[in-house]
Amino acid sequence: MRTSWVKERESDPVKTQMYYAKQGVITEEMEYVAKVEDLSPELVRSEIARGRMIIPANVNHTSLEPMAIGLAARCKINANIGSSAIASDVQGEVEKMQVSQHYKADTAMDLSTGGDLDEIRKAVIESSKIPIGTVPIYQILHDVGNKIEDLSIEVMLEVLERQAKQGVSYFTIHAGFLLETMPKIAKRKMGIVSRGGSLMAAWMMHYHRENPFYTAFDDILDICAKYDVSLSLGDSLRPGCLADASDDAQLGELKVLGELTLRAWEKNVQVMIEGPGHVPLNQIERNMKLQRELCHEAPFYILGPLVTDIAAGYDHISSAIGAAVGGWHGASMLCYVTPKEHLGLPNANDVREGIIAYKIAAHAADIARGRKGARDIDDEMSDARYSFNWEKQFELALDSERAREYHDETLPQDVFKEAEFCSMCGPKFCSYKITQNIMDNPEAIEQIAREAKEERLWELKKMN
Amino acid sequence: MRTSWVKERESDPVKTQMYYAKQGVITEEMEYVAKVEDLSPELVRSEIARGRMIIPANVNHTSLEPMAIGLAARCKINANIGSSAIASDVQGEVEKMQVSQHYKADTAMDLSTGGDLDEIRKAVIESSKIPIGTVPIYQILHDVGNKIEDLSIEVMLEVLERQAKQGVSYFTIHAGFLLETMPKIAKRKMGIVSRGGSLMAAWMMHYHRENPFYTAFDDILDICAKYDVSLSLGDSLRPGCLADASDDAQLGELKVLGELTLRAWEKNVQVMIEGPGHVPLNQIERNMKLQRELCHEAPFYILGPLVTDIAAGYDHISSAIGAAVGGWHGASMLCYVTPKEHLGLPNANDVREGIIAYKIAAHAADIARGRKGARDIDDEMSDARYSFNWEKQFELALDSERAREYHDETLPQDVFKEAEFCSMCGPKFCSYKITQNIMDNPEAIEQIAREAKEERLWELKKMN
Repeated sequence: MRTSWVKERESDPVKTQMYYAKQGVITEEMEYVAKVEDLSPELVRSEIARGRMIIPANVNHTSLEPMAIGLAARCKINANIGSSAIASDVQGEVEKMQVSQHYKADTAMDLSTGGDLDEIRKAVIESSKIPIGTVPIYQILHDVGNKIEDLSIEVMLEVLERQAKQGVSYFTIHAGFLLETMPKIAKRKMGIVSRGGSLMAAWMMHYHRENPFYTAFDDILDICAKYDVSLSLGDSLRPGCLADASDDAQLGELKVLGELTLRAWEKNVQVMIEGPGHVPLNQIERNMKLQRELCHEAPFYILGPLVTDIAAGYDHISSAIGAAVGGWHGASMLCYVTPKEHLGLPNANDVREGIIAYKIAAHAADIARGRKGARDIDDEMSDARYSFNWEKQFELALDSERAREYHDETLPQDVFKEAEFCSMCGPKFCSYKITQNIMDNPEAIEQIAREAKEERLWELKKMN
Repeated sequence: MRTSWVKERESDPVKTQMYYAKQGVITEEMEYVAKVEDLSPELVRSEIARGRMIIPANVNHTSLEPMAIGLAARCKINANIGSSAIASDVQGEVEKMQVSQHYKADTAMDLSTGGDLDEIRKAVIESSKIPIGTVPIYQILHDVGNKIEDLSIEVMLEVLERQAKQGVSYFTIHAGFLLETMPKIAKRKMGIVSRGGSLMAAWMMHYHRENPFYTAFDDILDICAKYDVSLSLGDSLRPGCLADASDDAQLGELKVLGELTLRAWEKNVQVMIEGPGHVPLNQIERNMKLQRELCHEAPFYILGPLVTDIAAGYDHISSAIGAAVGGWHGASMLCYVTPKEHLGLPNANDVREGIIAYKIAAHAADIARGRKGARDIDDEMSDARYSFNWEKQFELALDSERAREYHDETLPQDVFKEAEFCSMCGPKFCSYKITQNIMDNPEAIEQIAREAKEERLWELKKMN
């Protein structure tokens, strides 16, 4: 779709969506997004120019269908995929990518740390119509033979450029975590739980030098600007348990991310900010507000947050609760968590479970925000339910296959697709059916109700 | 446990916990609950006397381990079990009861509508240490051959007495739904979605007479007082979809439930109030506050609420989101919803999935409410994680079997129970391990951080 759009811009000095937006230009990507989101193209342009919305769309990912992340847009979800040294390969990751798109993840991150990383990433991007994000430090470390002390700024920039060329649409960069924060981490229950963050810490302590992503931030911005890679400013110090939530380490880093946001915007690089993590339910709204304040309203991209630490095996649920509340209070994208969190690498089925939990959270957030038309599909579903249109119900469900499978578990025969009941209550106890039978004559109902009310008021009067 | 306690009270004129509480008596049940909840016995007594807490404990359910429902206590969850005409039997329901207790549901409701109802209920109560609730209208209708027009107040009271004798600890009674509300239902998208509510409506419209549960409310209270059956005042008009949430029909009934609460308290009958249903995330807090106001702070017992209508197959998740927020804002018990909701009758595995989703919601609510000690187990889990104590992690997880199963899916060998990594990140990328390695020397860290901060401030100064 984007091949011709990108080609026409070949001779432009800067090619980021933010650059065009600031020039007053509405790109084809903005037009497309405006249509999908039911917004005016001018609103999309002005939100991008202001930094409140991003369209992560690497110029080299031409098969991409543009999508937007920002408070004016629908709340989005990201699916993390990727191999580890212990599990998965190219085929496994392409399968996860297919599952991600089938269940409608809005973006996916390839977080591979094992196998041929370039090959996996190439296959993932080629099979994807949604933006692909990465955490480049994984490959940087991989390329220096897993010896963090061999990491240099040159290697770092080379890997970034290589991934940008491949068509990665956003980079998680752990640039906000500085040496001065280190003592705050020592006070924590769980230290650093971000993989990238812990690797940076190891490098910084080995060399006694400042975070190289921070030091080389301007060079990184130049690469991002060249390919229109959006920055996802990583929260190296996100809390890894409720006890560490909203602490000095987390909030100190958030402030630095705010500084970096302004520097990126100056170079026309699109930015979103990553957020926690593990946060008690009652602290989520405050976290969302703080981010907007400290990061100048750049879109917030949160991981969960999990609202309890004891749900291992069900952390997609524990975190979907936090994600829904976070989305309601202003997060623009929700990074899913799968049932395998804290226990192992997710497989394709875990990806499905994680995505649906987060589709629920994001949709609930859109409804709670009062987003125009958000509830329409719910209303359609309710109509389908009340009219016993089972096929329509399956079609409208977030996971049609699952809905059908569960229904058919007890009533598999075709005839029950016309039935005015299900196995929950059986034919005699269906409340919809009973209600419909008695609602046939609205005028009679009005009459009876009026008389009954008068009588009751009379009785109450006598009693007092 | 309760046999001797109950025996000693044989000659007392009234035997409800509320009666004793009002007399200033701290019963053994209150003592027990106070211990479990880490509250003073006097606080428990005064909360029960005030109606803000209940101990649903039928005098005939002597194997019961007393538990409390109320804002001062831990947030509770209920598991609905029960047969339908199409599925399950005595054995199936006893199995669900075992699953419910294994995964620590706080109460269970036997909602059977098919098979030998008395036999199923007897078996369920006998196998249960937690309070059992019922919706007696199901059996009442069953006993009049499923002909709602044959229902009479005599049959109604006879069934209530029979179930009370068996040891049912709380009854859902649909007494707040009056003829005068009927026209409001006609305006709804989904009418009445409560089975009991729709049955009452059918009876009321057939006879053009007021709700028999309302008319005979005093007789019902007498039965409840005799056996100390708590009343769970049913919300016949709970919204069945987001479109109907917080409407006149729902709130009108809630007001009547408030009137009935005062009448029950006068007769020393313990009361809780049932609540929705399907409610957008942003309306939940308001719903909780309205209930407290209109129902004089009687404990609120909510079903979900679901925060979207399109999650068929995953409604345990959609509703756990609403339940967590409801619990945080003051609901005292959360009635679970299983993945089969809207699709079919849940089986034992669905019961497990529903319970764990709700244990998460209730626990998240306790933490958010700032309940004393609520987060202790989360902190223990975090310590176990950070020290790679896998066995402890499995033990502390809400579903130990599931946590172990997921971990072992990729790393089944015993040796990995000692491993300082899992298959998520592999041995080289474990952030805990990396952090621990660099946090060995806190003094050096302080020193480096101080120097780095001075340098950065100096650089920033030069730039400005």
